[in-house]
Amino acid sequence: MSTDDIRFGLDRRVVLAAPLTLASGQVLRDVAVAYETYGSLNADASNAVLVCHALHPRTGKPGWWPRMVGVGKPVDPARHFIVCANVLGGCSGSTGPGSDGPDGPYGMAFPVITIADMVAAQLALLDHLGVRVLAAAVGGSMGGMQVLQLAATAPDRVRAAVVIASAARHSAQNIAFHEVGRQAIMADPEWRGGAYGDKPPAAGLSVARMAAHITYLSEAGLTEKFGRRLQDREALGFGFDAEFQVESYLRHQGLSFVDRFDANSYLYITRAMDYFDLAAPHDGRLADAFRGTRTRFALVSFTSDWLYPTSESRRIVRALNAAGAEVSFVELDSPHGHDAFLLDTPELNRVVDGFLRAGT
Amino acid sequence: MSTDDIRFGLDRRVVLAAPLTLASGQVLRDVAVAYETYGSLNADASNAVLVCHALHPRTGKPGWWPRMVGVGKPVDPARHFIVCANVLGGCSGSTGPGSDGPDGPYGMAFPVITIADMVAAQLALLDHLGVRVLAAAVGGSMGGMQVLQLAATAPDRVRAAVVIASAARHSAQNIAFHEVGRQAIMADPEWRGGAYGDKPPAAGLSVARMAAHITYLSEAGLTEKFGRRLQDREALGFGFDAEFQVESYLRHQGLSFVDRFDANSYLYITRAMDYFDLAAPHDGRLADAFRGTRTRFALVSFTSDWLYPTSESRRIVRALNAAGAEVSFVELDSPHGHDAFLLDTPELNRVVDGFLRAGT
Repeated sequence: MSTDDIRFGLDRRVVLAAPLTLASGQVLRDVAVAYETYGSLNADASNAVLVCHALHPRTGKPGWWPRMVGVGKPVDPARHFIVCANVLGGCSGSTGPGSDGPDGPYGMAFPVITIADMVAAQLALLDHLGVRVLAAAVGGSMGGMQVLQLAATAPDRVRAAVVIASAARHSAQNIAFHEVGRQAIMADPEWRGGAYGDKPPAAGLSVARMAAHITYLSEAGLTEKFGRRLQDREALGFGFDAEFQVESYLRHQGLSFVDRFDANSYLYITRAMDYFDLAAPHDGRLADAFRGTRTRFALVSFTSDWLYPTSESRRIVRALNAAGAEVSFVELDSPHGHDAFLLDTPELNRVVDGFLRAGT
Repeated sequence: MSTDDIRFGLDRRVVLAAPLTLASGQVLRDVAVAYETYGSLNADASNAVLVCHALHPRTGKPGWWPRMVGVGKPVDPARHFIVCANVLGGCSGSTGPGSDGPDGPYGMAFPVITIADMVAAQLALLDHLGVRVLAAAVGGSMGGMQVLQLAATAPDRVRAAVVIASAARHSAQNIAFHEVGRQAIMADPEWRGGAYGDKPPAAGLSVARMAAHITYLSEAGLTEKFGRRLQDREALGFGFDAEFQVESYLRHQGLSFVDRFDANSYLYITRAMDYFDLAAPHDGRLADAFRGTRTRFALVSFTSDWLYPTSESRRIVRALNAAGAEVSFVELDSPHGHDAFLLDTPELNRVVDGFLRAGT
């Protein structure tokens, strides 16, 4: 494709010219990647920053990660050419199970994808945008997995990698929670084997999100935020309404997710995360995934994050050390569990800002 | 009722002569309590031990808690007159939502019950059996809640209380997980507002159990038991079957639970647990629930139990100390999470055995 096709700004979409050969061996043609860019690519194309989003859906606010990305933020359009693409398998414009395949809507005929496949689509987008080497890739949670995968797959294409509240593999407990969510979706008769059309399996997706949402928060955070306080009542009602505030909150989280996310995408993306194990192709030696890398790494974890706990970040740091990589690590104190990475956390911004500036 | 009605041994059932006034204010008539007894009540009726069961269903083995109760075990029919009753609201013979009410099967017309209501039914059973004062009450998890409630409600009726892996109140996170399970059941169209008859909401109950089961195990325990090992395959299948062992295990836990537990009972019992907060009637001062008690207490927690963690047991111990109660506490090292209390844990048996013998 010619550079005339390249468009900058919000709500862009490119259909990749080359088919994508997936980790499963399947070949996906006409892959669309939806993306946004902020700022301008400088003359030597050296200021590009890839922002990798997590499973969390977009809010109504502009951009996926407004607390990290924006004027005066660590990832700053005044300095950086910022690229954020909807992941392969997603439901915000990129090709996924909700897209039309060769024989009509994919549904469950969509191939199972991996984090590596998501990264392959992003690299193709960067080719399209004329970005050969990223100044940095930044991501939290599933976004951090993509950053790690990118650094492992294409170390010569990323100078700095920022991995926040993330993991190099999904643990048994991580898989277990995702499986509960998938079973909740698939148990909903409205799911119809994935062929639900415009009538999504709202109840199942809502339950899936409720279960997942608990894992994003800490026990202490839930206690602080809700405790055993009642919702709009003075005394126990002896019924099955949402009598406790935490019940009301969770139900709201579940219901509002249904409006913002596609059930089949949820199945495919959680599967991709469960499959993620960077050490697997190296007989379990994570360091070998990064051997010889010249990428600089920054890892951040949060004290109360039990989904991707500090111990997992430390494991990655040890592997990077063993691989001879330049790596910094900080565990930040927060009562907000996994979700801390998306909240207003000035220390996180200072850490990421300092790391990104040190490389320039 | 006359003592002629009293029967000892397995699979007994008594219909209480007096109606039960519940915490909600509702009155429940013709309450049946299913129970088993082991051993014999001695001449001065001083050797009775009440075993309080948890939400975990019975296995095929005799008795609810074979590792704790039996010849040569801490609760021993050679020494004790052992009573174990199915809780009010349960589905193993006691009156619950599956029972017939005045106008046909209760279903969701069954009143919401509390842990205190369960204990009231047990006290009525003890009256029926001629047991005025228990040598001990012993329970883990929800069973421990009943023991605490019993000691608070009727301190003169229990000389020793053994509370294992339990809590004096349900935390926001505890409530949140239960609410996910209830929503999963209620989202299943087969639930039919509770009027499912012989066709239970299997998919919803199965998902509820899967979510709950994760909370019974520790992250480390899941990693040790399953890690990322695959089930009956050499490589990833790129599909949505249960490819990981942990998925297969969880699905089995969910499906087998459906055969052993009633969905409406699950709703009512989880609600009772969520309502549990021993300090609530005392303006939040837990010590006041035990003020002046002469009951001896033993509390046990497990290091990797994140459902009812050691911090909660310590909170109870502090309250008991403040109330001037005699209390011993031990945190046992186990990688098996909450479920440790049901597993072969010789140290647990030694602790309980020593405590029970010290009181005789």
